[in-house]
Amino acid sequence: MRDIGIGLVGGGYMGKAHAVALSAVGAVFDTPLRPRLQVIAAASPASAEGYRRAYGFARAASDWRDLVADPAVEAVVIASPQATHRAIAEAAFAAGKPVFCEKPLGASLADARAMTAAAEASGLPNMIGFNYVRTPATQFARRLLAEGAIGTVTWFRAEHSEDFLADPALPATWRTSGRANGAMGDLSPHIINCTLALMGPIAEVSARIETVHTTRPGPSGPVAVDNDDQAQIMLRTASGVMGHLFISRVATGRKMGYAYEIHGTKGAIRFDQEDQNALWLYRAEGPNATRGFTRILTGPDHPDYLAFCQGPGHGTGYQDQIIIEARDFLSAIATGQPVWPRFRDGLAVAEVIEAAFLSAASGRWQDVTPA
Amino acid sequence: MRDIGIGLVGGGYMGKAHAVALSAVGAVFDTPLRPRLQVIAAASPASAEGYRRAYGFARAASDWRDLVADPAVEAVVIASPQATHRAIAEAAFAAGKPVFCEKPLGASLADARAMTAAAEASGLPNMIGFNYVRTPATQFARRLLAEGAIGTVTWFRAEHSEDFLADPALPATWRTSGRANGAMGDLSPHIINCTLALMGPIAEVSARIETVHTTRPGPSGPVAVDNDDQAQIMLRTASGVMGHLFISRVATGRKMGYAYEIHGTKGAIRFDQEDQNALWLYRAEGPNATRGFTRILTGPDHPDYLAFCQGPGHGTGYQDQIIIEARDFLSAIATGQPVWPRFRDGLAVAEVIEAAFLSAASGRWQDVTPA
Amino acid sequence: MRDIGIGLVGGGYMGKAHAVALSAVGAVFDTPLRPRLQVIAAASPASAEGYRRAYGFARAASDWRDLVADPAVEAVVIASPQATHRAIAEAAFAAGKPVFCEKPLGASLADARAMTAAAEASGLPNMIGFNYVRTPATQFARRLLAEGAIGTVTWFRAEHSEDFLADPALPATWRTSGRANGAMGDLSPHIINCTLALMGPIAEVSARIETVHTTRPGPSGPVAVDNDDQAQIMLRTASGVMGHLFISRVATGRKMGYAYEIHGTKGAIRFDQEDQNALWLYRAEGPNATRGFTRILTGPDHPDYLAFCQGPGHGTGYQDQIIIEARDFLSAIATGQPVWPRFRDGLAVAEVIEAAFLSAASGRWQDVTPA
Amino acid sequence: MRDIGIGLVGGGYMGKAHAVALSAVGAVFDTPLRPRLQVIAAASPASAEGYRRAYGFARAASDWRDLVADPAVEAVVIASPQATHRAIAEAAFAAGKPVFCEKPLGASLADARAMTAAAEASGLPNMIGFNYVRTPATQFARRLLAEGAIGTVTWFRAEHSEDFLADPALPATWRTSGRANGAMGDLSPHIINCTLALMGPIAEVSARIETVHTTRPGPSGPVAVDNDDQAQIMLRTASGVMGHLFISRVATGRKMGYAYEIHGTKGAIRFDQEDQNALWLYRAEGPNATRGFTRILTGPDHPDYLAFCQGPGHGTGYQDQIIIEARDFLSAIATGQPVWPRFRDGLAVAEVIEAAFLSAASGRWQDVTPA
Repeated sequence: MRDIGIGLVGGGYMGKAHAVALSAVGAVFDTPLRPRLQVIAAASPASAEGYRRAYGFARAASDWRDLVADPAVEAVVIASPQATHRAIAEAAFAAGKPVFCEKPLGASLADARAMTAAAEASGLPNMIGFNYVRTPATQFARRLLAEGAIGTVTWFRAEHSEDFLADPALPATWRTSGRANGAMGDLSPHIINCTLALMGPIAEVSARIETVHTTRPGPSGPVAVDNDDQAQIMLRTASGVMGHLFISRVATGRKMGYAYEIHGTKGAIRFDQEDQNALWLYRAEGPNATRGFTRILTGPDHPDYLAFCQGPGHGTGYQDQIIIEARDFLSAIATGQPVWPRFRDGLAVAEVIEAAFLSAASGRWQDVTPA
Repeated sequence: MRDIGIGLVGGGYMGKAHAVALSAVGAVFDTPLRPRLQVIAAASPASAEGYRRAYGFARAASDWRDLVADPAVEAVVIASPQATHRAIAEAAFAAGKPVFCEKPLGASLADARAMTAAAEASGLPNMIGFNYVRTPATQFARRLLAEGAIGTVTWFRAEHSEDFLADPALPATWRTSGRANGAMGDLSPHIINCTLALMGPIAEVSARIETVHTTRPGPSGPVAVDNDDQAQIMLRTASGVMGHLFISRVATGRKMGYAYEIHGTKGAIRFDQEDQNALWLYRAEGPNATRGFTRILTGPDHPDYLAFCQGPGHGTGYQDQIIIEARDFLSAIATGQPVWPRFRDGLAVAEVIEAAFLSAASGRWQDVTPA
Repeated sequence: MRDIGIGLVGGGYMGKAHAVALSAVGAVFDTPLRPRLQVIAAASPASAEGYRRAYGFARAASDWRDLVADPAVEAVVIASPQATHRAIAEAAFAAGKPVFCEKPLGASLADARAMTAAAEASGLPNMIGFNYVRTPATQFARRLLAEGAIGTVTWFRAEHSEDFLADPALPATWRTSGRANGAMGDLSPHIINCTLALMGPIAEVSARIETVHTTRPGPSGPVAVDNDDQAQIMLRTASGVMGHLFISRVATGRKMGYAYEIHGTKGAIRFDQEDQNALWLYRAEGPNATRGFTRILTGPDHPDYLAFCQGPGHGTGYQDQIIIEARDFLSAIATGQPVWPRFRDGLAVAEVIEAAFLSAASGRWQDVTPA
Repeated sequence: MRDIGIGLVGGGYMGKAHAVALSAVGAVFDTPLRPRLQVIAAASPASAEGYRRAYGFARAASDWRDLVADPAVEAVVIASPQATHRAIAEAAFAAGKPVFCEKPLGASLADARAMTAAAEASGLPNMIGFNYVRTPATQFARRLLAEGAIGTVTWFRAEHSEDFLADPALPATWRTSGRANGAMGDLSPHIINCTLALMGPIAEVSARIETVHTTRPGPSGPVAVDNDDQAQIMLRTASGVMGHLFISRVATGRKMGYAYEIHGTKGAIRFDQEDQNALWLYRAEGPNATRGFTRILTGPDHPDYLAFCQGPGHGTGYQDQIIIEARDFLSAIATGQPVWPRFRDGLAVAEVIEAAFLSAASGRWQDVTPA
């Protein structure tokens, strides 16, 4: 095993999660490479130094270019605002360094396309972070679907609903301006990625996207909100399954309503991230009198579970999802083989979002057209 | 209190439920009229006589015209197939007799319009049966919404999903032929009625309606299925709330998936008929640390509960919903005042269904246009 | 089918439930006898007449002796206070009339013994009412246990917890005086009956019984409470299984905490009356990865369900349990064969209660000694 | 911030959990000391070296004495078998080094007493590990109780049930021999610690302890099991509350049945570790019609939550509990102040276990007598 020097851009919201993951991943998993926390970059020298001390990096940088250029940095993790993703990733690939980028893949479809092109032109390992899909429960759902455990899928419903902006009295902020910061830009990537992971490509969509609270209090009176609070999307997958997505940041009562419900000819699956250690499975087998939804508690027989837990019922949490991402990124670097989800998978999400906005504008069904 | 002679058309599926309700309602509620089980009509003399003995009616009739014409029959309850609803109702009104008609209101929009016109021209009491909306839990949800308990509603999602035709090996029957017998014709009236009751009128819809299993085994090979197995409907209410409905008869694992989820600016409500004695309520009040969805068990403080139960936690069931309908029908007759839901409310449901089919055909949003 | 004249003693709390049940049972079930509501007796002429009108009995009586003596009364249902059970039952048997008696079987062990002796000496049909055990879910649990679905049982836990006296500010009433009216006297019979039905005889107990709120407000100051608020009982069944019972009328938050949890070598069962249409079953079968507790919704394949419901997921309620009791009582009369639970089964409950009080007094394990 | 050299004894079951925790704690929390993974000791040179590489320690030792004696080791974490706890802890204290010891505190009451005496004589920081009690949910339950959120507690029920030995076909191992390895020795410490944390001292107990599967397959025929599979304990706390504990390793279907239910005069609390991110709270406040158990999802307003999560609904897991323990141990060392739970708290648990065994032998209530 050898060390690999990591440069982390961003130390706030998601930066900390990645810093912790990089500290722990080597003890949790038998990784081929052990991350060395080399440089952390943030917007100012003071914040960078604060993060450096808090997370135990060797060096702080107040410019991500400095981080990318440092020869001791052998791979880059991007956890900075969306608008910065593209430039950092392009620079890192240009410097020959693998990149892990937090979702979404840039701030626009153009960003996502450019980043994917840069990644693939470089031939370097590239990953995008959709952490929720990494729970043992959802990984197991993928496996069940692949094995045909519920037969042919006939209906898919999913949502990503939270309530952090449900209160109309909350003030206008950067979150309430700019398409990239709306519910579609911020939350939908998670659940669209989940949909693609579970169901395969989406062929067409019909969407309605709306701003529920059209103004928010500002320092000197009401400020117009120019991005969306919630959206719904009817869809048909390439395999012909009808489905529906709901995305909201104003869903009072929902904290992490990352949830799905899948019906098939032989069974059904249900999941809700608010009870992330359980997957519900119905199988149309055996006597009617004993059929029902089974609450399967994730345990040693489910993907990645045992890395974190000593036995059944112990339970994994949010931070563990990030550690799984770190493990996979290290594996991609060590083997030179791409691991899911790559930038291309992030681009596929952006294409669905684009189609949803087009449909919402036209009031008609819209094909999802990959580049 | 005086007796009133009831004629019941149909003794099968729903006929029994109404026969039991008519037997029990007088002891359950302090009704102004006590039903006298006078005549039951069915398709053949033998079946009519069988039902008469089973339910305790005074007389059996093998022709509903005979029942309607009988002077001892003072009110008519229709629990026969949809295609017969209109003729029976029209005859009953012509004979000056109040009518309770099981959902849906006839087999087509034309039927619903004609039946409503006949009812209103007659000036007689008329009711349509949407039993599920009568649970104490859903009645309480209506009250909470009316009182503004969750603030301004921002999102409404509902479904009526069952799995009685989920297995593709089930043979073709009358259920798999004719628009009135599809999932939209058979199941959607319940949940559209529920939506109207909770949210008020629907202004526009965008729907997709599909046949999942396009053929079914027949006596001599596969038979084409010509009606729908499932549907989804995006909607906007007249009050401006965005919502979504899902209707399915192939939703493996769902037995009575009559369920809704409502978000508002100050709270949220959730309900699932598969746990019909509980209503879940979230209120954005008090410290964050103690907020959450509260499972309210229906009890003495909820509508109609105490008529059936001696104390909290006792629980009501399906049959109780039908008894509540019987109570209201008797009240309408006694007072001469219409009670909800009238034929007009059944027509409103039919208009939404019509708009959904038009939207599914056009692929566009469709206004719901009341007559 | 012929009619049978019923005399009902008591029209209040449980009396109404039985009146409704007697009205409906003939339409719900294909009963060999159809009850005719003949005489209702209550403590005063006014209350008796009120009940008569409300429930539709032919005649009112202000003395139960009058009811018992009436030749038109062919069977007697006792729903009056505990202290009256014995005299009424003894008189009815003496008059050659079958008796259904609400739980508990009299107000003391002596009552229970005398009533059982009188019943058995008469050779007449006799039943005791433990309604909760009649749900399709609990009837199905009995069947599962009998079939060995969870292997050899290794642990049994049950409770009957409610909170109707949880608030210490509630005033002293008849409920707070007299051993028969305490939690052990009032609530434990239900859950002890359930235990006996599911697990067979109890061999020994070790109990603690306590008064949580030792005084209650009275009209002129605090009044001492002389009966128990809650109790716990460790037990061993005759078959050697260890178990535990909890009984409480001060369990804040519990409305109908009639619940049990049973572990066996091959599975487990869980039930809670607050979700009475669901039984949870775990089976140690198949791959570990898909094991879990299955929420089985009661439906057409469970005992007595279809009598009340038209399809799966419709759900039964409290009143339906009473109708099942009525069906069984009519069957016992028609066939002359005893049906479970007989007076003898009510006596078995009283014997466990007696042993629990003895153990609570001694602080030691106490054998349950049948007469 | 300065580093502190940690010696970890044991790299298996719990050793890995502590190794991960020590790797991550500095990035998760703003700890006063940052752990340096100095020496790991295991039973053989090969296993020690394997653990060293896997977890990233500087040095491996095949004798814990070597680890304790190493001047670079400034604090000792004991995660080796129970029987070794005492000698290691005594040596570490003698060498002037703070000790964190996994539960239970040695293999017997004598061990627990000696270890507590050694810890207190040394004046050094000492902690015992009861990880489950560290979830945000249970920490919040402690706070709610302390604040009187549910009034005066009237009933407490808890269990620690798992099913890892439920199958009678599982062979005899070290787990099925020796009192320290039975369900009481292995599992009860967790739930007794939880009980003490939530309810304060226990005054008296009445217990039954039993071996459900008295023999297990051995290499040459059945082998007698000489320790317990399950136990139940009735108890009274020093504050006068009646309660009950159930402990089992044969509870089919239960994976981490670390659960409690607490009733008070003004509310109730429920928790189950199998849904560790939720606490259920009932409050007897407001209109009856909106009362019920509220499922509170742990979030930013609950203890220690935000250290691991970026927002509400993200969820903590098993590993996070161990990291919280590491944080507290570092704090104890840095400040020289004891933090809960100390060795003395582990001893208190051992005293309850002793009383339970005495009661089980006598069949009578037994006082819990602190040394």
